[in-house]
Amino acid sequence: MRTIHVIGIGTGNPEHLTIQGIRALNATDVVFALDKGEAKSGLNAVRRTICERYRERPGCRFVEAPDPERDRRPAHYGVAVDDWHAARADLYEDLIATHLGQDEQGAFLVWGDPALYDSTLRILERVRTCGRIDFKVSVVPGITSVQALAASHRIPLHRIGEPVRITTGRRLREEAGAVEGATVVMLDGDPRFDGLDPDLTIHWGAYLGTPDEILSAGRLGDVADDIRRLRAEARQRHGWIMDIYLLMPPER
Amino acid sequence: MRTIHVIGIGTGNPEHLTIQGIRALNATDVVFALDKGEAKSGLNAVRRTICERYRERPGCRFVEAPDPERDRRPAHYGVAVDDWHAARADLYEDLIATHLGQDEQGAFLVWGDPALYDSTLRILERVRTCGRIDFKVSVVPGITSVQALAASHRIPLHRIGEPVRITTGRRLREEAGAVEGATVVMLDGDPRFDGLDPDLTIHWGAYLGTPDEILSAGRLGDVADDIRRLRAEARQRHGWIMDIYLLMPPER
Repeated sequence: MRTIHVIGIGTGNPEHLTIQGIRALNATDVVFALDKGEAKSGLNAVRRTICERYRERPGCRFVEAPDPERDRRPAHYGVAVDDWHAARADLYEDLIATHLGQDEQGAFLVWGDPALYDSTLRILERVRTCGRIDFKVSVVPGITSVQALAASHRIPLHRIGEPVRITTGRRLREEAGAVEGATVVMLDGDPRFDGLDPDLTIHWGAYLGTPDEILSAGRLGDVADDIRRLRAEARQRHGWIMDIYLLMPPER
Repeated sequence: MRTIHVIGIGTGNPEHLTIQGIRALNATDVVFALDKGEAKSGLNAVRRTICERYRERPGCRFVEAPDPERDRRPAHYGVAVDDWHAARADLYEDLIATHLGQDEQGAFLVWGDPALYDSTLRILERVRTCGRIDFKVSVVPGITSVQALAASHRIPLHRIGEPVRITTGRRLREEAGAVEGATVVMLDGDPRFDGLDPDLTIHWGAYLGTPDEILSAGRLGDVADDIRRLRAEARQRHGWIMDIYLLMPPER
């Protein structure tokens, strides 16, 4: 039967790859990659670097396909995501059926970890549910930007014995500033920090683990403007940005 | 100046180690390990395996010291943790001063990731604040049991675009059953699942990533007793257990 490895590759530092990831990569005949357009071509460059550096045998096929268009400002978020997952499922099914032999192994190299804000597992499940092709899925965990952020700042994510919450910029805005405990915010395309307590401590990072890494930390009220400026400049320079931040309420 | 690497090594599968972790390990002259008694000696065995397997040059010193006693049923949790951190800080300072030359590099190999429910970073900060010895700290992120759990079950940690909360068994009990969204529970030494909605979905795992891995998943009301039985048997057999679970409320 076909096997699809979903391999977490970390945040852009090829050395985030685990030995388990390298082993799965070396069992792989075909690496599938979606092309998200020129601005994000740096992401597939990292994937190619990983294949070149850590594949011990030659002959791995690298199959790139354009990512389906996604409505970035949808009227209804859930419906837009569902449409986009459906389009991706059709594409994945087609890629697997066309490029992967019955006993071959394929891989998707996933930014961060397949379990956190990545759609690959959901989409493969969708393909399998359709029932036209059959395959096994194997998941290899990878370093997330949450961990890379904490490592670069050399901090724990939470106070002793306290919880940590991982959420999205969208959610943070919907909840209108209720930061109860340690809160990691991912996928915030436009961090305005509106309505947040200026006494929160923020640890922010972009391009974590890469030579382009930028870090900033301090009292939110003091550093928010700096972070927005750094972020805008970097985004302009690179054509894309991936960043993340940890908010921590003042000690009671 | 001395450098201390705090290296996340994953959850017991030596192949969770990243290339970055291997690089730090190979720069290390002395690996420090705390001996937590016979029951948990399996943990240091994994550390030794990692050193033997991934060190390219010989001559790494492995310094083991008994872990300070910790009050496991304290009247006041915060005070007990503080006392224990103070005792550990004295020990770490002594270990570094005694065993690490002025220009040498030491390492602590941390289970999971240094940022999540691990005290090493806090304790090193405490040592540095004391000011008697000086050193740089470098942090290498590692695969957490949160990620290993999701990978073994081949699931995302959250519904699309929703947050995920990582907490402890102690906290879950204090909050008396308020599971609002995807919730990962770590460090639950006695999971009774009391007061939790039986319609929650649970994904549970122990010894994740190792040959002893055990998994169970289902509706909490259906599988809670099974999990408690599996857990008690495994703990008896191995002398120790490390496990974790994800709770997910029913879809609204």
